[in-house]
Amino acid sequence: MSSGVTSAALLPPAGEPAARLRVLYADTDAGGVVYHGSYLRFFEAGRTEALRSAGVPLTRFAEHKLHLPLIEQMIRYRTPAFYDDILLIYVGTSELRRVQVTFDYQVRREPDNEVVVTGRTVHACMDLGEGRVCALPAWAVGGLRLPQLPQAKDS
Amino acid sequence: MSSGVTSAALLPPAGEPAARLRVLYADTDAGGVVYHGSYLRFFEAGRTEALRSAGVPLTRFAEHKLHLPLIEQMIRYRTPAFYDDILLIYVGTSELRRVQVTFDYQVRREPDNEVVVTGRTVHACMDLGEGRVCALPAWAVGGLRLPQLPQAKDS
Amino acid sequence: MSSGVTSAALLPPAGEPAARLRVLYADTDAGGVVYHGSYLRFFEAGRTEALRSAGVPLTRFAEHKLHLPLIEQMIRYRTPAFYDDILLIYVGTSELRRVQVTFDYQVRREPDNEVVVTGRTVHACMDLGEGRVCALPAWAVGGLRLPQLPQAKDS
Amino acid sequence: MSSGVTSAALLPPAGEPAARLRVLYADTDAGGVVYHGSYLRFFEAGRTEALRSAGVPLTRFAEHKLHLPLIEQMIRYRTPAFYDDILLIYVGTSELRRVQVTFDYQVRREPDNEVVVTGRTVHACMDLGEGRVCALPAWAVGGLRLPQLPQAKDS
Repeated sequence: MSSGVTSAALLPPAGEPAARLRVLYADTDAGGVVYHGSYLRFFEAGRTEALRSAGVPLTRFAEHKLHLPLIEQMIRYRTPAFYDDILLIYVGTSELRRVQVTFDYQVRREPDNEVVVTGRTVHACMDLGEGRVCALPAWAVGGLRLPQLPQAKDS
Repeated sequence: MSSGVTSAALLPPAGEPAARLRVLYADTDAGGVVYHGSYLRFFEAGRTEALRSAGVPLTRFAEHKLHLPLIEQMIRYRTPAFYDDILLIYVGTSELRRVQVTFDYQVRREPDNEVVVTGRTVHACMDLGEGRVCALPAWAVGGLRLPQLPQAKDS
Repeated sequence: MSSGVTSAALLPPAGEPAARLRVLYADTDAGGVVYHGSYLRFFEAGRTEALRSAGVPLTRFAEHKLHLPLIEQMIRYRTPAFYDDILLIYVGTSELRRVQVTFDYQVRREPDNEVVVTGRTVHACMDLGEGRVCALPAWAVGGLRLPQLPQAKDS
Repeated sequence: MSSGVTSAALLPPAGEPAARLRVLYADTDAGGVVYHGSYLRFFEAGRTEALRSAGVPLTRFAEHKLHLPLIEQMIRYRTPAFYDDILLIYVGTSELRRVQVTFDYQVRREPDNEVVVTGRTVHACMDLGEGRVCALPAWAVGGLRLPQLPQAKDS
């Protein structure tokens, strides 16, 4: 919508979605569509399950007094989603650095697989004891490397 | 709506509202009205400011390792509120016991003062160190006794 | 917590839960627990799926220009739930009248099946064209009669 | 935090904040801080009031069957905010094109004026009758040109 990029430009991810969610009234707004802030919840649901499946559940970071707060995020809204839609949340890792990790997202709608939004979240590794950024732990690095999503030229 | 009680049966509270809020898209749902869960946020806004004004801010409880979690709440939805409405949150204390306190709420709409919802929250005093219910502290009892709201026969 | 009623007093429902949800950070608050307002979202998730399974999806009401807004709800918070908990949402119908229906809820935690909250929502049948309460349609009455949940003496 | 940019690099905006908000439990998460998604609500509160003050309230767009949905947004999280903090929301216009408008945001904390987050939202003008993007109306252009915020080199 913003720049003539159609959903068709985004190849569907190869694997299964990390989460499959039904849109509730709680997720919508009086514009009759999913509230723009709700997608951060959907991203969280997908990211949480993707990391659990990859063997690095976020609770394991907490056990090590580590946390992965967002330091940046962005979303591009491509087409609206509606009450009772089923949304598929795809998550991939686009960058893994010493102290931070970046995840990419595609939210698609069943059954036509149309792209609703794309987005990105950047997380720092925080040592909760020290209260500062630290290196991602060795045990997590493999799991944090989720298969990359196909990239749109503009995303 | 549910039982023939009109707003007229509810006398307006005597004093100023504890909070005055503008309805955002974030508060609404695809039914075109304020989402039913949003009123708990509005109650929290009113309760927080009412207790601050009464000299017992909730942060002071936290300083004493105390917390006032909800153990029960109820809401009666009387008429819908809409995007961009201005809502007035009135709060009063309906019961103060040794270990718990009950607040009543009226949410009214400017400028006609129509009653949108009425509700109630019951809070226990929790000792966070001990992890159990405890007596409300002597320093808080006076402040927790907010002026009562006028009661509807059915509320 | 509020009155000495233990979870043991609540028999587990006979059937499957209507929904099974993982608690996200989005559902929690700085008290370290699930935010008290989040349970209305969990109730909505359970109610939506229970009615779909019973053959009366809420979208079918919308197709008939009908809506089932809440006119009342209450929740009793019995024990806190935490980040990453898995919650089971059980829903039953406690009363079906000509123009309104009442659902009861139990939210239990895996794997110990402890009762986290119990609650109730009362819905009116609204004719969106006329803008007023109307009789529940004949096609919906059977589906709206979900099996009752076991009742606690105090709930 | 993410790139060594300190808050000091961001000059405070010249005028008054568009909104001044108290952080509620409803805005926080179990990490003990404001939930990352809550800032979109704070942005909405600031944007709504800034446009009202500028003489182009969003309800006026609705009266003309126009809507300004987000087509893109991004947030940089610079330092956490906490329960009961007072946040100041500053909003400026960074770009005004024929069919879209971009707003920039700074969220600062009282009383030290520290920058908590910065962000941006891009909105398209949608004709709700036609269901497609259209030119921003002539009556709105002046009001949509809010004074620009001081820019950080990296934002």
